[in-house]
Formats: sequence, structure tokens, C-alpha cells
Amino acid sequence: MIMDIKSLRKTGFKELIDFTKARDDYLFNCKPLDDNELVSLLQARNRVLSETLTARIPIPNFSKSAMDGYAVKAADTFRASVENPRELSLVDSISIGEYKELSLEKGQAIKIATGAFFPDGADAVIKIEDTELDESKRVLNVYVPVVPGKNVIKKGEDYKLGQEVLKKGHAVTAQDLGALANLGYKRIKVMKKPRVTIFATGNELVDLNDIAGETGDKIKIEHLPPAKVINSNRYLIQPLIEQAGATVVHAGLLRDDETTIKDALETALDQSDMVITTGGTSVGEKDMLPVVIGKYHEVLHHGIAMKPGSATLIGFGKGKPILCLSGFPVAAQVGMLYFGIPAIKALSSATILEPRPEIKAKLHDAVPVKGFGLMRFLRVKLEKDTSDANALPWAIPVKLSGSSVQRTMIESDGIVELTENIEGYERGTIVNVRLHPN
Amino acid sequence: MIMDIKSLRKTGFKELIDFTKARDDYLFNCKPLDDNELVSLLQARNRVLSETLTARIPIPNFSKSAMDGYAVKAADTFRASVENPRELSLVDSISIGEYKELSLEKGQAIKIATGAFFPDGADAVIKIEDTELDESKRVLNVYVPVVPGKNVIKKGEDYKLGQEVLKKGHAVTAQDLGALANLGYKRIKVMKKPRVTIFATGNELVDLNDIAGETGDKIKIEHLPPAKVINSNRYLIQPLIEQAGATVVHAGLLRDDETTIKDALETALDQSDMVITTGGTSVGEKDMLPVVIGKYHEVLHHGIAMKPGSATLIGFGKGKPILCLSGFPVAAQVGMLYFGIPAIKALSSATILEPRPEIKAKLHDAVPVKGFGLMRFLRVKLEKDTSDANALPWAIPVKLSGSSVQRTMIESDGIVELTENIEGYERGTIVNVRLHPN
Repeated sequence: MIMDIKSLRKTGFKELIDFTKARDDYLFNCKPLDDNELVSLLQARNRVLSETLTARIPIPNFSKSAMDGYAVKAADTFRASVENPRELSLVDSISIGEYKELSLEKGQAIKIATGAFFPDGADAVIKIEDTELDESKRVLNVYVPVVPGKNVIKKGEDYKLGQEVLKKGHAVTAQDLGALANLGYKRIKVMKKPRVTIFATGNELVDLNDIAGETGDKIKIEHLPPAKVINSNRYLIQPLIEQAGATVVHAGLLRDDETTIKDALETALDQSDMVITTGGTSVGEKDMLPVVIGKYHEVLHHGIAMKPGSATLIGFGKGKPILCLSGFPVAAQVGMLYFGIPAIKALSSATILEPRPEIKAKLHDAVPVKGFGLMRFLRVKLEKDTSDANALPWAIPVKLSGSSVQRTMIESDGIVELTENIEGYERGTIVNVRLHPN
Repeated sequence: MIMDIKSLRKTGFKELIDFTKARDDYLFNCKPLDDNELVSLLQARNRVLSETLTARIPIPNFSKSAMDGYAVKAADTFRASVENPRELSLVDSISIGEYKELSLEKGQAIKIATGAFFPDGADAVIKIEDTELDESKRVLNVYVPVVPGKNVIKKGEDYKLGQEVLKKGHAVTAQDLGALANLGYKRIKVMKKPRVTIFATGNELVDLNDIAGETGDKIKIEHLPPAKVINSNRYLIQPLIEQAGATVVHAGLLRDDETTIKDALETALDQSDMVITTGGTSVGEKDMLPVVIGKYHEVLHHGIAMKPGSATLIGFGKGKPILCLSGFPVAAQVGMLYFGIPAIKALSSATILEPRPEIKAKLHDAVPVKGFGLMRFLRVKLEKDTSDANALPWAIPVKLSGSSVQRTMIESDGIVELTENIEGYERGTIVNVRLHPN
């Protein structure tokens, strides 16, 4: 799999590997860390379950009344009518949160509140409106019959004891957490967050923190050294890594120098579970990453049939995934979305490696596809089609060329994947839009 | 607007207010806090901008070469061909990150790398492949003419100095942050997070932290007092509040007692920007919240034409929004999604009050609508329709009845809003699904 970098050097990429194959190969080799920790429920949102959870407590945890009324034996109400009410004797009442160790006998009724503990011996609840109480005699006139089970929420009706609730690999949502509290979990076992080191390489880069600026908050062009560029990719990539469920343990800036890169990579592979770099991954003289990884580690694929992002390098070092993204912001973003985030999810043992929601939309403009054989990522803005309530939204291509164009990232809502073997798309074509992470 | 709670008490809600009107009234009265703070870019994801941001630095911040080649005056290449190459004298080279204060003269060429500083005097870059260099004589033979501007990325091409980038009220995404670093921002002004107090009321409730459990992590049914229920709503609501961009400053559990609730509400309204409660909001004897809010504060609407969640109360105290949700988990969830989260967004001055993505799907099963005039929230699971690549996904109703059924929350992916005035939906009807927050 290790490619001859030198032979690529002179001519650019001789051959680009198929996008889907590259991605599959990469993710297949990103082995789950399978290391877990206990976190409290309030810390657990978006964490990946490291064990399948079952109901330790049934829901509800006791049978209860579904409404304000009277607990009765249903048989005592049969054939009741307004003309011929059945008379029951009111023996007690149970309010919500109250526990009474009693057993209802034939001919008896117990006043019961919504959600209150349903007493032994009873098998139905009759609505207040279907009865009349003679307060002085403690006699309840029942005008309407009820069937057994009526208005009773049975213990375990929602979740039985031991029933499977959520599977290992599931990323916990807020809606899960409410149920988990009820099911008997105070803390849950989740996968440890993968630790990621990020590097930017490029002699043209300056660190945002190294620029003094005016007030410490804002920078003017005069504060920038001439011909230098702010390392902005870190501010794109780190939030995406964190949102994907990993931690950035180190973020650095490296000169385009073989020894510097070799040493930094060595340390990073020792101290983290994944290394993500930006820049220096093409086939130019200053592109040291492919050289270093080729010499000391493993290049899985370098040069992928995708646009933007064809210079992406995927590899492994010390068994850990390395992802070298282009230095061009949009190419780096696309590389993060299609390789970086899924790799983090794979390391986390998550079941869903591609967390971005996908929606159907229709193309607002025709899109000619040049470069047959490439997977192309079209940035689009979504807009409601107000002509018809059932109409799909419009996907409007954000038409700016060049992979360095940061405006397409800000102005787009998602990405349409234009597959390799289609020559072009007409206006109105139905497409899938993967929404950007927020 | 204040309703007579006592008159409602005997009969349940006499009248339910229209869902859309209730929501509009409520959100209209949730006034933006308009208090801001500075945060560093890496802390800014999902925060709401408190000022419109403009480009303080143009992107790119200097003109640069789009490829490896030679910077030239385009006019010097006109009429160049393989038969009649134009000869230019190679005078210098500029690598990436390097700044050279020089001016290219007529008849000269400067070797230039991709992304390198584009020198004064030049107006185009010619590709290496279209030239041949006579190294000894330092003479460049140009075989192909270029037009002015060719292969040059102009300063400010992506963002001009002062150009508007993101508007006040925008919730910052990871993709924005990369651009903001380049545009000259180290820290940005964002809205302060609204502070929220949450209360659960109900004599049946026990706090999860007050249950000893086996190991501290897990609880068995034996650890629960009989007829008591874990206050699970907190574990649903707090993560939703946090994800919406607010902070929970206090979370408490209150007995169904007028004075207790009055005092707790008073303190909460002093110490936070919004109060959200669960339980005790219907028209039963133990439902103290409507009484207290009616007496001491303002009930905007109580009893809303929605299902689940008709017992929701919306009001204000000391000018701050109060949201009383049903104690039933699914009703509480729906109330949070449709009232709680939008109210937090309104307090945060966010432009988009409803952040859940909406997707089109088709109903997998017919859904009869009982209760004409109610806005109904149908929980659905999404499933790909594999019969056709262009087909909308199926929205499969999660068929469990009762608003207390927590399983529908775990098993559903989103909510279909069944509007008030439709009698029923057939299989295949195209619907909008609002995806749950994750």
C-alpha cells in the first residue's frame, strides 16, 4: 500500500484512488479504542455507550391511575347505567406519591388521583364524571361500566424489567437521558473520548495567538507579517473534533522541515489516539508529510479522487490513524467531514460513523460535472420552495470557485455529493444534502 | 389575558388556546437579554453573535499564486508558441511564506510557489508545464501565452476589507470559526447565556441523587420508596436547555404546597432569566403552579390546544418568562421543543428560534386525527426507502399511547406536526419531520 512519493513528486498525482474505497479502507482500519469511563447522566449527552443498557427498573415502577377517579373492581360496575347505578362503598383515598398497603374488596371503591399508586384488589379506574358521590353515606353511584384494566397504567407497561433500552455504540441524546434516570441509572459507562493531536504545517503560517492585535481581540492587516497567513484551519478543525466526541490534546504549528515533522509526529502518535494535520500534503517540494509518513509509518492512500481534497493522505502510525488534510480551508473541511469525523466515531465504537443528517432537496441550478471519475462535494444553501407545501427545498449551489474560498463554508448549509460517474445534473434534480455540523 | 384558574378547576380546561397563537404571544414577550461577553474562538461554537461581524482583514490578505509557476507580465507572453517561444530572464524566486520587496520589470520572470506572495509588477502566473528553463543562462522559454490575472488569487477575492461576514443573532458554527480566525478575530462578542432555574413539583417525586443505589451508579426497584417516582424530567430538560445555549443555575424539587412554590418561584425569578417547571400544572387540587402564578405573577395562557402538552402554562414574572410543563415526560419534551428552546433562543437574541432541522418524509402508516382543532405531535422513526434513490424516507409513527410513554422518545427520530384542521393523514402523505436535538 505504501506508495512511491518521489515518483509522484514530479508530475502531481499519477493516479487517484476511488473515494469510497479509500474511505472504507481507512475506517476499517480505525480500530475502536474500547476503553470506557463512568459519567453522570448530566455529562453523558453525545457520549457513546460502551455497554448495552437494559431496564434496571421497570417503567412505570408501579401500576398507577391514568386519571382522577375511583379504583374499583370492574365486575362491580357491569350493567351500571344512569337508570340503574351500581352502588359502591367509598373506603379510602390515595393521593399522588402516597403508598397504602390495603386491598380493595368486592363492592368497594377508593378515590384515586392521576398518577397515584393503584391499590391491590382493584382492576380499573372509573372517571369522576361517570359517578356521583353521596358524601354523607360514603356511597358512590356508578353510572357507566368499565372493563378490567381501564384507566390503569400497568407497572412495566413502557419498559419491562431487564428489557433492552439502548445498544452499545449508541450516541446518547437528551431524550435518552430522561428515560435512563427512570430506568435506574445514575451514571453510565461510556467510551473514553479519543485524544487527537492537530498540526498545521507550512512556512507561511502564523499562530493567531502570536499576533498581538489592537486590543487583544481583533487584528488588523497591519499586524500580520507580509506574505504570512493566519493558521485558521485550527479554528475550523478543533470545534469539529470536539463536536464529534474527541478531545484535542495538543495543537501545534510546524515548519516544513523533515526532522521537525518526524519528531512531532512521533510524539503525537505516542500521546494521542489520532493525528490530524493540515497543509504540506500535496506533491510539492515543501510537502514533507507524505515523505515522513512514507518513510517511518504507513501511507494507506495518498491522492484521493475527490474534489476538493484530492491531496488528502490517510495512513497509520503505531496503529493509530493519521489524517493529512489539505491546507486549503474548504478542502480541509471536506476532509474532516468525510474522513476525520467518521474516523473519530470509529475510534469511539460509535454505531453511526456519519452523524450528519441527510435531507432531500432539488437542485436550483444545473451543475455540469467536469472531471469524470471524481467524487465532487458541492456546497449548497437550502431555501424553502414556497410554491407548494409538499415541495422539497431548493439546494442552491454556492458558486465560488477554488478550494480556498472560505465564503462557501460560511454561506452553505450542507454538501451535495456528486458521485463519480454522472456527467452533470439538471436543474430540479433531486439530491441528498448532508447538513453541516453546527 | 389572565385566566380564572378557579373556574377551570372543576371541569378541566374549559377552553384551549390555539397553539400557534399561544406560542407567538409567548415568544413575542420573551425580550432579548442583550447582554454580551467576549469569548475566544475555540469557545464560541453555538454562541449567538451580539454584533454583526465584518472582515477586519481581507481574505486572502495578499495576492498570491494559484499554482507552481512563474510570475510574469502577461503582455510579455502574448503570441508565444512552441515554434516561437518568448524568452524571459529569470531574476528571482519566491517560496511560500516568503516576502520580497521587489518589482518585476518588463521581460522578467520570477519563480513562484502555490500560495506564495505575488510580486509587484507581475500580473499573471504561467504554469511550469508551459515553459522550459535554461538553467545556465537563467532564461525561461515561454510556449503559451497567458492573460492578465491568470493563476493569481487576488487580495480580498474571498472577503473584501469591511465586508459583512455574519449578522448579529447568528449562532456560530465550526465552519464560521475557521473563517473568523482569518478575518482578524481572536475573540468575539457573543450574547451572555440565559440563566435558567428548573423545578420539578410533585409529592410523588424523589431526586435521583437522594437514592443510594447499589454501587452509587445503578439503582434497583427495591431502592425506590413505594409509590414514588424518580424525577427523570430534570435529566431530559437540563441537557436540552444547555444545548439550546443556556445555563441551568439551579435545579430543585418542590412539594405541592402553595407557600413553598411561591417562595421558590420568587427566588428563582430574582436569580435567573427564565424559570421552567415540570408537573403540577393541570387543573387538579395539587396543581399549585397555576394558582401561584395567577396570584403573584402573570398567566399568559394556560391550556393549549396541543397534544401532548395541553396542560402547558406560559407566563411571566418580574418580566421573565415562566414555562410550566406537564410532568408527563413526553409532554414535557414537546413543551421544551416548542416553547422552552425557542424562548431560550429569543432571550439570546438568536435569529433562528427553531433550530431543529426539518426534513420531508412520507408517512408509513395512515394516521387518523381525533380531537379536531388540536395541534398533534406525532413521534416518528425515519427509515430509508430503498426502492428508489430519489424516494423520500419513511416516517414510521412510533405507536405507543399516553404522554408518559418514554419509549417513544428514545425510539423516535423526530416529530411530525399534525396541524389543527386536517382530519387524518393517509399512508404516503408527505410530511415535515423536525429532527430531535441530539
